[in-house]
Formats: sequence, C-alpha cells, structure tokens
Amino acid sequence: MSRFTPKNPDFAARVRDSFNRQGAMAHIGAELTRIEPGLADIAVSYRPGLGQQHGYFHGGIIGMIADSAAGYAAFSLMPQDASVLTVEYKINLLAPSEGTRLIARGRVIKPGRTLSVCQADVFVERDGQEHSCAMLVSTLMTMTGKSDGLASANKKP
Amino acid sequence: MSRFTPKNPDFAARVRDSFNRQGAMAHIGAELTRIEPGLADIAVSYRPGLGQQHGYFHGGIIGMIADSAAGYAAFSLMPQDASVLTVEYKINLLAPSEGTRLIARGRVIKPGRTLSVCQADVFVERDGQEHSCAMLVSTLMTMTGKSDGLASANKKP
Amino acid sequence: MSRFTPKNPDFAARVRDSFNRQGAMAHIGAELTRIEPGLADIAVSYRPGLGQQHGYFHGGIIGMIADSAAGYAAFSLMPQDASVLTVEYKINLLAPSEGTRLIARGRVIKPGRTLSVCQADVFVERDGQEHSCAMLVSTLMTMTGKSDGLASANKKP
Amino acid sequence: MSRFTPKNPDFAARVRDSFNRQGAMAHIGAELTRIEPGLADIAVSYRPGLGQQHGYFHGGIIGMIADSAAGYAAFSLMPQDASVLTVEYKINLLAPSEGTRLIARGRVIKPGRTLSVCQADVFVERDGQEHSCAMLVSTLMTMTGKSDGLASANKKP
Repeated sequence: MSRFTPKNPDFAARVRDSFNRQGAMAHIGAELTRIEPGLADIAVSYRPGLGQQHGYFHGGIIGMIADSAAGYAAFSLMPQDASVLTVEYKINLLAPSEGTRLIARGRVIKPGRTLSVCQADVFVERDGQEHSCAMLVSTLMTMTGKSDGLASANKKP
Repeated sequence: MSRFTPKNPDFAARVRDSFNRQGAMAHIGAELTRIEPGLADIAVSYRPGLGQQHGYFHGGIIGMIADSAAGYAAFSLMPQDASVLTVEYKINLLAPSEGTRLIARGRVIKPGRTLSVCQADVFVERDGQEHSCAMLVSTLMTMTGKSDGLASANKKP
Repeated sequence: MSRFTPKNPDFAARVRDSFNRQGAMAHIGAELTRIEPGLADIAVSYRPGLGQQHGYFHGGIIGMIADSAAGYAAFSLMPQDASVLTVEYKINLLAPSEGTRLIARGRVIKPGRTLSVCQADVFVERDGQEHSCAMLVSTLMTMTGKSDGLASANKKP
Repeated sequence: MSRFTPKNPDFAARVRDSFNRQGAMAHIGAELTRIEPGLADIAVSYRPGLGQQHGYFHGGIIGMIADSAAGYAAFSLMPQDASVLTVEYKINLLAPSEGTRLIARGRVIKPGRTLSVCQADVFVERDGQEHSCAMLVSTLMTMTGKSDGLASANKKP
C-alpha cells in the first residue's frame, strides 16, 4: 500500500490518459501496468526493434521506461492543474538485460511542491524470474497551470 | 580535428558496423552522421512515434541517441579486440526539444584503459538553427576480448 | 543482517584501519559507526566549521560522508589484496540538513568483480528523530593488487 | 569574457559576502579566486587535513569546492532578492588529485528562472601545471525572496 495521499482523486485516470497520448511509449509497445499514489510501473515485451544483436534490451529502452515510470509516479501526487517535467536523471546499468520482458517500477522518494525526487528499479524477466538490471534516480518538476501530463516532459520553464 | 589517436586504424568501419547491427537505432530511424577519433554524432528526424502530443522529441529518444553517441565516441578509441559497455549516465534536459531533427554530439572527455568518461551535447534543429536541449555525461567500460561493439551495452562483467 | 558474504574475513578491521588513516575524515570529526558485509555508516556531530550561517550542515560535508560510507560498504566485500576507488557519484539533496548530527548509511546495491554500485541514505538528527536529507548513488572500482583501502580514492587506473 | 549579463549589478560583492559567511569553506582554507557573470573559481592549497595518506586531495574536498564553484556561478546571475540552493550534482573523478593546489572552475551551462544547470571542471596543480582531475554537473534552484546566498544550500522548498 502506498504511503502517499494523492492531491488529485482522479490521479489514476489522469496518468493513464497522459500515458496513452505518448507516441514514443506506443511505438515501443510499452504498457502502464500499475498506478498507485507515488508508484507507477511500466513494462515492455521483447521484440527485435528494442534490442541489440544478442537479443538484450537496448540501454536506451531501459532508460526510456525507467524515466517514464519515475515521472508518472511523481505525476500521480501532483495537483489537478499541474503537469510534470523531467529535470534530469541518472541511471546505472547493473546487469545484462537478457530476457523476455522488461519492467520499470517507479516510486517517489521525496515529493515536493516544486521538485520531486523519484527512483525506478528495472527488472528483466528471464526463466520465470525477475532479475534486477538497472536503477534510475530522477528529479521531476511540477508545472502548475499546465494540465497535460508527462507529455510536456523535457520542457523547461 | 580530433586530439586523440585511435588504437585501431579501422575504428570508423568498426563503429559503423556496430551501429548498423543495433535494432533499436534502426527502429527509431537514427543515423550515425560523424565518426572521428573520440567523436561520434547521431541524428534522428522527427516522426510521430518519437514524440509527445506537442510534437517534441520524447526524453527517452534524447537519452537513447545521447548515450549511443557518447558510447561510440569511446568505442572509437578502443583496441580492436574490445567492445564497449555503458556503466552509467546522467542527463540534464535543458530546453524543450521542439524541432525537426535531433543531433547528439558525443566526445571523449577522458579516455582510460578500463573506464572512459564521455559527454554528449544534444541539439534540436528549429527554424534552420541548432538549439541546445540536453547534456549527458557517461562512464563507459572497455570489455577486452569481446569484439562486438556497443551491442553488448548494459552488460556487466 | 547482511545478505552478502565477505571475501576477506578481516574486512571490518581493514575498513577501520583505512578509515583511521584518512586525514579528511578526522579533520571533520567523522566516525565510522557501523561496518558489516556490504554496509557502512559514518556519522559526524555538528560544529561551526561544518556549516553555514544558519547552522545547517554544509552540502559538501554531506557529500563527503555519503561518498565514504558508500565506498566503505563496497570495500567491505572486496578481496584482501584490493583497494577501492570512487569512479563517480550523484547526490540529491532532499531536505534541509538542520540538526545536531549527520548519519550516512551506505550499502551495496550490486557488487561486481570490477565495478560495484552503492547507495547512501543520509539522515540528520533533530529533536531526537532521524530525518532523511540526502541520497547518493555511486560507482566504485576494485583496484586489485593495491591493498590500501579507500585512501586511494579518486585515483584512476 | 562572460557571455551572460547579471541581473544584480552588485553580484560580485554579494557572492563574496556569501562565500565569506560559509564556515565550511573557511574550515578547509578555500578561497574564491574569480567571480564574473556566470563564472566562479574556488581554490584550496594542500594540507594534511584535506587528504589521504598518499598526499592526494580527498574526493570529498573535490566535491565540496566543485559544488560551491558551480553554485556561485549560478548565484552570480540571480536577482538581488534571491538565494541559491543545490538540488543535485554528479561528479566524475577523472584522475588522481596529486598536487599542491586544487582549483574548481564553475560556469553556468544553462541559466533559468527557476532552475540552472552548471558545470565545474576541477584541476590540480602539479609541477607548475594544471591537470584535469574531476568534472561536476549540477542543478541549482533560485529561491526568490530569500536573499542570503549559497548559505541556504541543500534547503528544499
């Protein structure tokens, strides 16, 4: 259970709506598999266009879903008239991402009125088990008065 | 002109070959537009699957080409029997990536036998001009005895 | 209890010895308050030379003990003939470090033969309670054949 | 010459005043050796309390002056009624910091109304020459209506 109370009671619908409007998420076949206050999971199944010649997930795909999972975790706690923007992130690739499915589990470490700090742990499914493969830490900004979700990510005031 | 001397005289062919085998780079339509000792540029033109509803490039696409440009810059200086792996990277999103084409210019800051530090500056073309939109710093590892290029990225020994 | 098995049975004595030889740790009055396989805590009590005019701990002091706590956590799992070196770290300052004592709790996220990834959570004691104030993620390198501990930090092969 | 125009004509006096009130900077013997719009240098001479047993500068001292140099570079461009706060930073240690004097050269990469991105390059003087030893990238926040300088660093709204 989440330890956070959302400011927007319709946070789940809003996150789903924003996710569905992201062309890049659809392009790679990513799904939003969990949304709770301060928590968001994004998963993607392996296909050749997401990989390298060894059949591992590309590091860029890992970064993309980890950044978005962390961003939506932050967005879930924001007021109704706000959108969210990634200020910066850092990712450590911990192990080969060999497997059939990639899951990024984002969570809010520290919510803030202006800035929030989030973490995403990324796992790859292999032989029926989840293996840790990456860890992301990011800083997100609340954009008050701009109600269009993560879509405005990487915009800066 | 580059200030580095490559250990592998065939570095350019090797980088191109590795780039061409990356499914994820082809999937997003990225091109390797420059390869010199310690320098690599990757560009991608805008299409809906790379964006958000506002027509900006998605932050994940920016991270993907920036990470790869920095990685290939490092790879260009590595010996013939080595491959390269991204250990970690940090990216700051500096301005909206609104435009028709995205260019990541990677360069080696500090080459090392085991670890190299690289930077990639990312620009977006808009109204015929390049505008800075992101900055990445990454740590890359030389994997000796594994001659398959960036393809093994995010593998860890 | 730690989930790691140390390669060096004398790891605790070795970490303490290395810590005691660090001039900078003594200079700020830092103490090593815990050492277990993959875990290390460093604490420091407030004094004017560690602060700002508001009586908060300086961000540099926070970074210093967090980096060292993460580094010693990694060092505790390394073989007897190795030393440890900080490759890079990222720190997020989460809240004001107002209080009487600062504690950095370092732990290994992913140990590796060559590279290890660690995290340090930093807390400040105020009104008898610990408050989270910073979070660090770092990459550490095992320097085989150099048995002098963290003292060689920021050296690069 | 700087490419930035300061909002506060008295920026240099203000930065010096803030620097002089920082206990931690005095404690390690650091000096502010340059202040121009968007640029700040901080230097410190070697003494045993700043080092390791090998006579290198401690990584924590490097982080401390690099973070402050970047922070004061940002602060130099802020309005008169604002103070500055470090949100996060990442540092790569590039080479051994063996030498007699350490210099961090901070500069603004991207100024912003709310957030600024800065870089600091750190050099060590050895045999009469400057050698690159570290590189920091940081995110700084403008705290409007709080006119006390970097002193409030690591405070979060």
